[in-house]
Amino acid sequence: MKNLIKLLLIICVFFSGTNLKAQTKLLSMEDAILGQWRQFYPKSIYHQNWIPKSNSYTYYKNQALYKVDIDKKFKETKILSVDQLNKALKELKLNKINSIPSHQWIDANTLKFEIMNKLFYYNILNHSIEFSMNLNPNGANNHFAKSTKAMAYTVDNNLFITNAKGDEIQVSNDKDKNLVNGQSVSRNEYGINGGIFWSDNGKLLAYYRKDESKVSTFPLLDITSRTGSLEEIKYPMAGMNSEKVELKIYNTETTKTVNVNVTDFDDDRYLTNISWDANNKYIYIQVLNRASSHMKLNKYDANNGEFVKTILEEKSNTWVEPQHKLIFLGDKDNSFIYQTNNRHGHNHLYLYNGEGEFKKQLTKGAWDVTEVLGFDNSKRYLFYISTEKSPMERHAYRLNLKTAKANCLTAKEGYHNVKVSSTGKYIIDNYSSLNVPREILIANYKGLKVKNLLTAKNKLKDYNLGEIKLGKIKSADKKTDLYYRLVTPANLDPNKKYPVVVYVYGGPHAQLVTNRYLGGARLWEEYMAQRGYVVFTLDNRGSANRGKEFETVIHRNCGQAEMQDQMKGVEFLKSLPYVDHNRIGVHGWSYGGFMTISLITNYPETFKVAVAGGPVIDWKWYEIMYGERYMDTPQENAEGYAKTSLINKAKDLKGKLLICQGAIDNTVLWQHSLSFIRECIKNNVQVDYFPYPRAEHNVRGKDRIHLKQKVSNYFDDYLK
Amino acid sequence: MKNLIKLLLIICVFFSGTNLKAQTKLLSMEDAILGQWRQFYPKSIYHQNWIPKSNSYTYYKNQALYKVDIDKKFKETKILSVDQLNKALKELKLNKINSIPSHQWIDANTLKFEIMNKLFYYNILNHSIEFSMNLNPNGANNHFAKSTKAMAYTVDNNLFITNAKGDEIQVSNDKDKNLVNGQSVSRNEYGINGGIFWSDNGKLLAYYRKDESKVSTFPLLDITSRTGSLEEIKYPMAGMNSEKVELKIYNTETTKTVNVNVTDFDDDRYLTNISWDANNKYIYIQVLNRASSHMKLNKYDANNGEFVKTILEEKSNTWVEPQHKLIFLGDKDNSFIYQTNNRHGHNHLYLYNGEGEFKKQLTKGAWDVTEVLGFDNSKRYLFYISTEKSPMERHAYRLNLKTAKANCLTAKEGYHNVKVSSTGKYIIDNYSSLNVPREILIANYKGLKVKNLLTAKNKLKDYNLGEIKLGKIKSADKKTDLYYRLVTPANLDPNKKYPVVVYVYGGPHAQLVTNRYLGGARLWEEYMAQRGYVVFTLDNRGSANRGKEFETVIHRNCGQAEMQDQMKGVEFLKSLPYVDHNRIGVHGWSYGGFMTISLITNYPETFKVAVAGGPVIDWKWYEIMYGERYMDTPQENAEGYAKTSLINKAKDLKGKLLICQGAIDNTVLWQHSLSFIRECIKNNVQVDYFPYPRAEHNVRGKDRIHLKQKVSNYFDDYLK
Repeated sequence: MKNLIKLLLIICVFFSGTNLKAQTKLLSMEDAILGQWRQFYPKSIYHQNWIPKSNSYTYYKNQALYKVDIDKKFKETKILSVDQLNKALKELKLNKINSIPSHQWIDANTLKFEIMNKLFYYNILNHSIEFSMNLNPNGANNHFAKSTKAMAYTVDNNLFITNAKGDEIQVSNDKDKNLVNGQSVSRNEYGINGGIFWSDNGKLLAYYRKDESKVSTFPLLDITSRTGSLEEIKYPMAGMNSEKVELKIYNTETTKTVNVNVTDFDDDRYLTNISWDANNKYIYIQVLNRASSHMKLNKYDANNGEFVKTILEEKSNTWVEPQHKLIFLGDKDNSFIYQTNNRHGHNHLYLYNGEGEFKKQLTKGAWDVTEVLGFDNSKRYLFYISTEKSPMERHAYRLNLKTAKANCLTAKEGYHNVKVSSTGKYIIDNYSSLNVPREILIANYKGLKVKNLLTAKNKLKDYNLGEIKLGKIKSADKKTDLYYRLVTPANLDPNKKYPVVVYVYGGPHAQLVTNRYLGGARLWEEYMAQRGYVVFTLDNRGSANRGKEFETVIHRNCGQAEMQDQMKGVEFLKSLPYVDHNRIGVHGWSYGGFMTISLITNYPETFKVAVAGGPVIDWKWYEIMYGERYMDTPQENAEGYAKTSLINKAKDLKGKLLICQGAIDNTVLWQHSLSFIRECIKNNVQVDYFPYPRAEHNVRGKDRIHLKQKVSNYFDDYLK
Repeated sequence: MKNLIKLLLIICVFFSGTNLKAQTKLLSMEDAILGQWRQFYPKSIYHQNWIPKSNSYTYYKNQALYKVDIDKKFKETKILSVDQLNKALKELKLNKINSIPSHQWIDANTLKFEIMNKLFYYNILNHSIEFSMNLNPNGANNHFAKSTKAMAYTVDNNLFITNAKGDEIQVSNDKDKNLVNGQSVSRNEYGINGGIFWSDNGKLLAYYRKDESKVSTFPLLDITSRTGSLEEIKYPMAGMNSEKVELKIYNTETTKTVNVNVTDFDDDRYLTNISWDANNKYIYIQVLNRASSHMKLNKYDANNGEFVKTILEEKSNTWVEPQHKLIFLGDKDNSFIYQTNNRHGHNHLYLYNGEGEFKKQLTKGAWDVTEVLGFDNSKRYLFYISTEKSPMERHAYRLNLKTAKANCLTAKEGYHNVKVSSTGKYIIDNYSSLNVPREILIANYKGLKVKNLLTAKNKLKDYNLGEIKLGKIKSADKKTDLYYRLVTPANLDPNKKYPVVVYVYGGPHAQLVTNRYLGGARLWEEYMAQRGYVVFTLDNRGSANRGKEFETVIHRNCGQAEMQDQMKGVEFLKSLPYVDHNRIGVHGWSYGGFMTISLITNYPETFKVAVAGGPVIDWKWYEIMYGERYMDTPQENAEGYAKTSLINKAKDLKGKLLICQGAIDNTVLWQHSLSFIRECIKNNVQVDYFPYPRAEHNVRGKDRIHLKQKVSNYFDDYLK
């Protein structure tokens, strides 16, 4: 009740303020949660793609695909209308559609579509269907081989191919559901995100086969059936039995399958970053031991699966984490580019030849290559994105492979997404920065702007928002800069004291603070700013894109260095005159849920209110592939597991804590949060809880509006 | 925060008040929850039992059993010390114990004990063990036949006997776990509370066998195992397949088993109130159809299981609910007493002979016989308890079977528990009333007090409590009185306005308001009164011990008449000058949880805050045996199910609602509350939730302290 009055006061102050004309609107929760990707999403250009071997691109406008030829002064031609496409669909006996869907350029005149279980090639010159194929309606994990027009896919736990003639070939034939073919393995860690690997010529098909029979199961409750029912999922838990992964290669010509003969380490090893060489002769695997301390880049003969040689090895007393496939130049030396952060502390590019001889370090410096965009046609230049200018920014570079010199292609500060023409002459640069919602432009290989294509308007300009600032402080060990995002209350009165919500993730492989539109903030942060909160986010040590030392400080002690850094953030907050030192809350999900509960139980004098979502409570219940990399096994690191376990901290909870979780979370099992509240109950410690019965690890869509309203109300009830 | 200050103010006012000397203490939550059964439990006399065929009783005092002979001016003799009993235990190779445990009188000199898997007879004259038997450590559902000294029991799903010689005999031998022998059936409805029935001579053993193979299962999640595991329970849901129950009779002499040949109705019928006649020749079953609309009292030949005749029938267009076994007089006519509320609107006693001829109505009036205590040795008198004086009281009566006249044995107003001597001359009367914690006295068959044995002190006298009042109002249909309990705030200031918590159950077979100590209140109500709440409880129509019409008003529309009556209660509350009309909350568990959510969603303008525990949300998810009696099946009563379903009401929730439930609730499945919050989420309606991960339907022990603290905090946060 009191809070409602406060809110009304805030609203009154706002309406009587001086900004009345300019900024009168307030975000609703729906605006904040769904609106960010709908009405407030900055205007963009869709289906914008380079046409192969040209300086032309296409894009979608007014129900048609237009071609723009840069060399002809940006001459624009309509090349395909929806009506024309619908004619093709009719021919294929498919229903009409209302817009042109995703597609790919096969060559300068051919588009590939996959629509409603049909794959087809469409010729834009004579508007004819050049090739079509039925897709198995039960198929999943489709992988198309362009050179042979064959489609590989899985049905249940087996792998199939439909060839260009339309024949369906069953590649694997395992009856036991514990044996899974052609699907992703190792829970998508270590750069793995699929289980099907065509050779470039489309003749050989490598695929994973995993044996989950020793992996323990966990029950997920489905309340939607009449009597309640159950889904049992396989969940490899830290320190317990893992899945066994093999790589097999099917030869479409001989119809024979060979096993790739991997013998290194024990059979809990990871087979990561499967890479075909450019000649379809060899296949490379970055074989990693279960302990993630030792990786061997091995070369195997693709025809018989036999081991050829170990190209290189990586070792570390924290962890080795291969994340990148090899990139072959296709030259006579079978040269390839290898990426690692294990040599010089940051992810960089190294050139090797096919015999494994090191040729050259291509990039260097205290920054990370974050993405390789590809070569130009000549393969003399490689394009990549890096953090060289700032960890908060992303810029594109053109690297001369011969000289190892690179020039930047993106002039403006901010976060750039770039597509390079195959000629290497032009890029499409789509970027944003804190106060720039979006700009899209064409630049040339020197980084000079050729033409501006779009400057998106600020769709939030009529809203009374808090101010967003980006900045940096020093980490707790005083060694590095940490970047923060600070959202101050709308209509900030510097003489008042405001409550703070620290929004935290804190785990590896994530970076929340970037110099992109709104500084990477979700509009919920502005919603809270409108309600009179300071919202603060800090990327602590352990987070992404800051190099290996920065990340590996968490080894065997997740949450500890991260908390120290977050407390530096709190120190900074307390230095701000308008922050109320006695009203600091914290909120986070997943690793951020773990951080949230860690913070409120370790620093009860600082954090009065916390909302944790889908929190890891004890790493012994988390998965092998992620958990053991950071924590080793519970057997090897009993002390670290005990220290970081929040079960042991439940008794120390002093403030108000709400935990939310999806009840069918298959990432962080329900076990975690239920066990924590069980421990609170045992210790007669009050805690609040809310389950989302049909949500998995992330609460999405309309449920998310409900969730974020609950989170906000909780802070309103207890922090305001 | 505000609430904390308020509370502090209340406490300050209290400490500065005028009652400082007399009543200075406040109940803690632990006092309120556990204390009621520990430090505040009124002093009593333990193990107080009549010795057969005598006017003597025994009781426990100072680590010994004492005999008191009324006829010898209450002469007291020590008959068994713990030391003496420990000698016997040593002989039986059992560990020492510290007090005399529960026992039974076999005859004037023999006590039967069951201690640590030994059953034995102890002779109090010569202090010797007369008989002993090993109990199967895996056995459950022990039933002892006194006449043959045989023990029947179940191990898993089968039935066994250990005879007096110590031989173990397997009576049933079903491998299929869906076939269950010797255990209770029909989820303990219809007077059923066990599955083993010895004939009086101990030669024949009747037992239930149920087939659950068609009953659907429901999963319960066990989070305590390393990876989480699952218990699947059988749960017969309204409108779905039910269990099939048979009665079998094992003959210990022939070792043959016969089926009792029940053919009435379809095979979803209930076999209720299994009764042996006094001659061990016939067995009687009150056979009820699944619809609970038609009951036949059938007589079967115990030797071959064949049907003999139908003694009587009951029908109703609401429901028939047999609850009582026949009571045989043991005369030559094989006469028995039959109880029903289906003849004259209240539960009364009727005399029949073994041929089924109606002889006499023994009791009559607009009140219920609630318990039959037994005969005197002569079988000329029957003793019973009834509500004749007041529905809120219980008094004992001595009924002359010949004249059908009864005299009351319990003089003082209140709620009497009575044990009658087998001579019929004396009773032990243990009673309490609103302001009398407990009195125990001996009275004679005329109801005259012979001796007072104990007057318990009020252990709460130093506590500053609210006042408890009992009273009555008229039901919504103006036909009947409804009884309420009103607890007013401690230190009530009549010029102030106080918030109210309505504590509700409201379902059948329960009566919350009685003229026993504290009016039947739980000390939690006093805890809330100390915090400044009015706590109000009303037994609405549908509740117990008020006759059939009163109860059956809920038929096919659970919750509807009950809510109308509760709103009459609210009307009454609003007539009290110190009640704040805008701060009325409601709290209840199980059926009371259903009522709570029904009330806050149907009367949002009245109820601002609600806490519901283990609530039934939709009767279609509740069990057949209870749900179909009141609601019929979902197929037969779609309208009633739709009207009462709270799923349809979720969107109407306006106030603050917290739902709590045991996560392994096997009575009201988790399905209910999770589905309700799922519906709230869908409608973007805020609701609060808290699961007790290891609790079943009731949250007990220390968990209950946590629960009640959570409930209280919720009212403090949002109603104060």
